[in-house]
Amino acid sequence: MSIKVTNSLVTPLLTDKYQLTMAYAYWKSKKQDQKSVFDLFFRVNPFGGEFTIFAGLSEVMKLLPNFKFTEDEIDYLKKDMVGCEDGFFDYLRSVDASQIKLYALNEGTLSFPKIPLIRVEGPLAISQLLETPLLNLINYPSLLATNSARMKMVSGHKKTLLEFGCRRAQGPDGAISASRYSYIGGFDATSNMAAGKIFGIPTKGTHAHSFVSSYLTFSDIKNPILKDSKGIHEVNFVDFVLQTRKETGFTHTNDSELASFIGYALSFPNGFLALVDTYDTLLSGVPNFLTVAYALHKLGYKPTGIRLDSGDLAYLSKETRRMFTEFGKKFNADYFSKLTIVASNDLNEESIIDLNKNHHEIDVFGIGTHLVTCQAQPALGCVYKLVEIDGIPRIKLSNQLIKVTIPGKKEAYRLYGNSSRSPILDVLVKTDSTQKPKVGERFLCRDPSLESNRMILSPSKVVPLHHCYWDGKQAKEVPQIGSVRKYVIDQIHEMNPSHFALKKPLPYKVTLSDELYHFLHDLWIKEQPPLEIN
Amino acid sequence: MSIKVTNSLVTPLLTDKYQLTMAYAYWKSKKQDQKSVFDLFFRVNPFGGEFTIFAGLSEVMKLLPNFKFTEDEIDYLKKDMVGCEDGFFDYLRSVDASQIKLYALNEGTLSFPKIPLIRVEGPLAISQLLETPLLNLINYPSLLATNSARMKMVSGHKKTLLEFGCRRAQGPDGAISASRYSYIGGFDATSNMAAGKIFGIPTKGTHAHSFVSSYLTFSDIKNPILKDSKGIHEVNFVDFVLQTRKETGFTHTNDSELASFIGYALSFPNGFLALVDTYDTLLSGVPNFLTVAYALHKLGYKPTGIRLDSGDLAYLSKETRRMFTEFGKKFNADYFSKLTIVASNDLNEESIIDLNKNHHEIDVFGIGTHLVTCQAQPALGCVYKLVEIDGIPRIKLSNQLIKVTIPGKKEAYRLYGNSSRSPILDVLVKTDSTQKPKVGERFLCRDPSLESNRMILSPSKVVPLHHCYWDGKQAKEVPQIGSVRKYVIDQIHEMNPSHFALKKPLPYKVTLSDELYHFLHDLWIKEQPPLEIN
Repeated sequence: MSIKVTNSLVTPLLTDKYQLTMAYAYWKSKKQDQKSVFDLFFRVNPFGGEFTIFAGLSEVMKLLPNFKFTEDEIDYLKKDMVGCEDGFFDYLRSVDASQIKLYALNEGTLSFPKIPLIRVEGPLAISQLLETPLLNLINYPSLLATNSARMKMVSGHKKTLLEFGCRRAQGPDGAISASRYSYIGGFDATSNMAAGKIFGIPTKGTHAHSFVSSYLTFSDIKNPILKDSKGIHEVNFVDFVLQTRKETGFTHTNDSELASFIGYALSFPNGFLALVDTYDTLLSGVPNFLTVAYALHKLGYKPTGIRLDSGDLAYLSKETRRMFTEFGKKFNADYFSKLTIVASNDLNEESIIDLNKNHHEIDVFGIGTHLVTCQAQPALGCVYKLVEIDGIPRIKLSNQLIKVTIPGKKEAYRLYGNSSRSPILDVLVKTDSTQKPKVGERFLCRDPSLESNRMILSPSKVVPLHHCYWDGKQAKEVPQIGSVRKYVIDQIHEMNPSHFALKKPLPYKVTLSDELYHFLHDLWIKEQPPLEIN
Repeated sequence: MSIKVTNSLVTPLLTDKYQLTMAYAYWKSKKQDQKSVFDLFFRVNPFGGEFTIFAGLSEVMKLLPNFKFTEDEIDYLKKDMVGCEDGFFDYLRSVDASQIKLYALNEGTLSFPKIPLIRVEGPLAISQLLETPLLNLINYPSLLATNSARMKMVSGHKKTLLEFGCRRAQGPDGAISASRYSYIGGFDATSNMAAGKIFGIPTKGTHAHSFVSSYLTFSDIKNPILKDSKGIHEVNFVDFVLQTRKETGFTHTNDSELASFIGYALSFPNGFLALVDTYDTLLSGVPNFLTVAYALHKLGYKPTGIRLDSGDLAYLSKETRRMFTEFGKKFNADYFSKLTIVASNDLNEESIIDLNKNHHEIDVFGIGTHLVTCQAQPALGCVYKLVEIDGIPRIKLSNQLIKVTIPGKKEAYRLYGNSSRSPILDVLVKTDSTQKPKVGERFLCRDPSLESNRMILSPSKVVPLHHCYWDGKQAKEVPQIGSVRKYVIDQIHEMNPSHFALKKPLPYKVTLSDELYHFLHDLWIKEQPPLEIN
């Protein structure tokens, strides 16, 4: 199976024009090669939550080796950037990622505000040019993986979650991203076959309303022969179902719907699953399903269940469960009470919470629109800030404390205590520091903005979060999607569940080493002299 | 300039699995070649408005000639669809769009609920397989073009709108779509260079905060020489600005910001535009801009203006305008009062309405996140419904009238009256009808659901809305993006503005011919017999 994704749009030209006008100005000022450090991070967790799943790194790792303007692109830029000197375009021809170092969290890492997701080191102009594509490749994947993990938590780990968003995503590539990153975030399968092929994600799907509408009568079924599950006896399955229908007593249901279910069961006698809401869920769809399912059962097959796509899903699922159970008792097929109920109508975090309150009987949620569009918060506000130039720390000042960037080259450690297996906090430390957290040694961690808020830890475990993934060339491989998914699930299990509470989740602490704390505050005061007001 | 977009993801495999399971079931029932007709339409206009701009057709026209499974994809499907007979995969090998007819509205057509955006005619299984890719290719483009047109209306036609969404879109291809369809919807330019190159959209961009932060002192400028606009005299522009600063009196501003502005102006002496909110907009940014702008002015250049990216944009724009005007008066440069003010901080429809109420002085809006994510309604609910099979009309029944589909093959006409240049209503007519609307002839139009609601028109103009774009091969060309954009603008000017009102917009009438009205209602009654309730 091929796992290559080719996308001709991943080019350095997929960028905001201001990256190029800045590059020109850097080049004109002969600043283009100044050694710079940029941090890519976010300031607030999405969806009112207290965690974010970092994703998109593997696409970044495909961008970097291809970060080269084509002659065709240079020609376009020459025409577009009227008045810029020719020498600049020669310079652009030389641009690539061979002088870039990129540090990142591992894909799938639970991450928190202010911790750099990515740190880029390299020549100023090239590092600047990377801003837009990096943000493009990280923002949506991280948002979507987080959204998916939240939906999985709300649904409960026993439920199966299916991604159904292809038709509502931002084009083909939005659809593929949605499948990929929802799987990383904990979804179990996708309806998107292209994503299934590319990433090996399990795929799921049954049939639509149009399938039901396309059957008019039983004579629509031109090929009604079905062997039993052992392949021994053959029946005319239409006749067999109509006979069974007399047994079940469900004789007043919609015939064309029944015909369509027979047509579908003939194709998928194993794993028969029917969409039951085309006419009337409880009066026609579920009874027709039960008739066909029971006919399959008598032939030794095991039917799977039904899908609800409209109406009051809690009520319909409970009534369906009741009908399944009663039917199973009456016809000596106890497992019918456990048949699968899939629901798939405009679901989101809130509607699942409502369903939970109403004690629904749904086993599988198929989620599309609200998963892929992340309506509750459709963008993660990642930013990309200059934190050092030619060894001199830079700070993006702001009167709002939350918008002040932490200057200089930093790396993060996740510290664990002794009393639980959950991590206690993350601490940012200057990369060149001699004082880094070590197992069993007391380490002072400080709140970045609240002077009095200090914590001393003797960690039982210290996990460095940043790794060099690119150093002129690939320096570390991004694991396959399945391992990333497992990594996400393992971290969620390890964390204090209070961080995932739906109401007032506990913020996870992001702290600075004492050294970095002083470094930040000294620079802040120095760089922002009192304004003289005339 | 190349206008080709290649996207390896546009394949028949970019589809929901249920399209393939249905195709299998159709094939098993020997129904795969039944002549079917599907309508792609939406039921409700987005954003609480009363119009939608149809877009995405040109991508559909790229899908159709490539609608062919590769051997590699067939291999994947064989492994994925365990238990399906080999003959089915041979059948899939034969699948292409050579037997498909596709009718559509012209790209950019103002469209309304229930009017088919696209009608597909062809073999059942192939037409079914087209569902997901067609929805994927139409939903987001139409939503985004509509969102853009709304933002343009709210801003006012004198304002310039820039698309800045690349970093917040769903990946590269979401970003490209955002640029393309916002331009169609009436935006004036994009920051996205790849989109600029592919579609010839004008591009705009200046510099970011990191540019300002990257300058520490005036000595950062290694190349301070600037010729005047006539190319005669040369100055050391750093010295010249510092001299000018004494004249302007803006001597207590941030030096490193001033250095960065000088660096930028040296690169772009024509069209100098500075981001002024890095330190303090009114106390440092605008004064520094004015100093550099005035220095350029003295050398014969014409500066452009400033960009605001934070704070109270209405207040800051008014104060900036005041400073521009006073400065222009004081220094005999009257045109300074008309310098451009760009704003770009998390703008959306509502915040622009607020700015309007506060009599802002912004000339240009740069809009990113809320444009590309369409937060107010992140998905257009287009659906794809079977309306005819083997010549027999089909109806998707529902107890909700709004969800009942209009059966059979239909086409729409836009009818104009005599008293205004605005269209009065659209009317759907059976394609095989002998009674079609004609100029000057009385025509009875009926509300689809309200029996008593009938209108008789003698139209002064009758515009057929549906055109055959594909008949086994391309049958009509989609116009270039610039013509589509003009078509959108022309239609908006032509419509009764009440349909675009922000509060309680007037719904545009979508009606049925009398014949179609009866056809629908007769079928509805026939197909939904009273359920027998036991």
